[in-house]
Amino acid sequence: MDIVSTVSAMQASSRAAHKTGQRVGFVPTMGFLHEGHLSLMNIARQHSDLLVVSIFVNPTQFGPHEDLSQYPRDLARDKALCESCGVDVLFCPSESEMYPLDSSVYVDESRLSCGMCGAARSGHFRGVLTVVAKLFNMVMPDVAVFGQKDAQQAALIQRMVRDLNFPVEIRVAPIVREPDGLAMSSRNTYLSADERVQALWLNRALQLAESRVGEGGLQSAAIASEMRDLLGREAPGVIVEYIAIVDAVSLQPVDGVGSGVLVALAAQVGKTRLIDNLLLA
Amino acid sequence: MDIVSTVSAMQASSRAAHKTGQRVGFVPTMGFLHEGHLSLMNIARQHSDLLVVSIFVNPTQFGPHEDLSQYPRDLARDKALCESCGVDVLFCPSESEMYPLDSSVYVDESRLSCGMCGAARSGHFRGVLTVVAKLFNMVMPDVAVFGQKDAQQAALIQRMVRDLNFPVEIRVAPIVREPDGLAMSSRNTYLSADERVQALWLNRALQLAESRVGEGGLQSAAIASEMRDLLGREAPGVIVEYIAIVDAVSLQPVDGVGSGVLVALAAQVGKTRLIDNLLLA
Repeated sequence: MDIVSTVSAMQASSRAAHKTGQRVGFVPTMGFLHEGHLSLMNIARQHSDLLVVSIFVNPTQFGPHEDLSQYPRDLARDKALCESCGVDVLFCPSESEMYPLDSSVYVDESRLSCGMCGAARSGHFRGVLTVVAKLFNMVMPDVAVFGQKDAQQAALIQRMVRDLNFPVEIRVAPIVREPDGLAMSSRNTYLSADERVQALWLNRALQLAESRVGEGGLQSAAIASEMRDLLGREAPGVIVEYIAIVDAVSLQPVDGVGSGVLVALAAQVGKTRLIDNLLLA
Repeated sequence: MDIVSTVSAMQASSRAAHKTGQRVGFVPTMGFLHEGHLSLMNIARQHSDLLVVSIFVNPTQFGPHEDLSQYPRDLARDKALCESCGVDVLFCPSESEMYPLDSSVYVDESRLSCGMCGAARSGHFRGVLTVVAKLFNMVMPDVAVFGQKDAQQAALIQRMVRDLNFPVEIRVAPIVREPDGLAMSSRNTYLSADERVQALWLNRALQLAESRVGEGGLQSAAIASEMRDLLGREAPGVIVEYIAIVDAVSLQPVDGVGSGVLVALAAQVGKTRLIDNLLLA
């Protein structure tokens, strides 16, 4: 596994692969890897010849009062996991390599980014889209894989690729869960034992939504209301930030529920903000 | 010369060139080509194996009261000029091919774009950066050539390439002038005979600035003031929008004048808005 830290070395590596007809697969991450990330790498490897993973904790997607400085990091462990997963190039740029001090160009979005996580995290998706656009130009992937856990991010990346015509195929991989149903996240490490138990109700609320959809007859508002009731009753330590029932592509609210509809939520569990979602089949 | 109108055909053409080790050169235009454009094509051809020119009158860089509908067009003449200039691929996308109806992702800049033309043309540079980012992803050029006539645009494109890490080399070509000194522009066709005579004073004001810099001793404010006086005296039909004396890279105002300083102006001549500039050596 090559470990690369400069943009020019990364671009040279991808250019060399393309020249020999190889397809480049890419998984961008913020490190502290878990099985969710590894599932993305496995999918990328199936669709490419050169597998590139980036690790960069992107400061521009954190708000001023968010957890940038506390965000968990373990590069030695991440390197070993990447190696075991067959990663060919691990790209770990420094912050100064990533952002010149007088950076002033950004990518932003005006519709899908406004609600859900965007409503509470001003500037978050501008930071995400900008860093992903940069990474795409650095890695020049043929295919890139993102996780469905970050459903709004996945929809926005697909919109960016469409609207800015990036020559990259996007694949979105299913959420990987702990055996008890908690969606895997680097931020789960923040949870106390009690919070960990309370957090399980997020997925249970989504399962409730799924069963109500299966029974038929309910509109989205009634389903969201039942989810809120369940969480209020069973998990008083969970403070719901939003429950959104939206079209999975446009992220606009829908009344009727069915295939192609996304049920997504964010909640504060203690000091930890967690998200989870369910894509209706 | 191939004439291509879809994004997928354009990307396929560039990919095929890259696979055989060819370098792709690119000149984006809004058509109604003049010798300025042809000089860009000649430079691009010197640095590439496959020369791509795009013609697209980009609606998102025109304000609501600007000249989008009147902008001059002559595709038959443009095609002949491209052919005679050795263009390999002429890319002419339709507006619907370029912009899905629900486009919502854009590229913008927060510093260099605020003054000069950006102050009078709100949203103009967002439109320019977004369409150029899209064209870069469609054409995948190794080298792209822009004209110094649009000095602020050229600085912004270079900033975008740096900040978003586009793997594209940017070359900026000198202004091409009519024999009497008027900077070539597709918009010159709007000028009446009298306006054409008045417009010559724009370049003369820049020449005055150059000679004052050569003499030494004057600060930028005094030079701009002399330029305004000259225009007010000799060309009363020229309404100056701005005279900017700035660092050519950062576009921030400077007091001292010398190498690397840009003297730029915009003015209304009748109903026509013209720009011109001088890069001090």
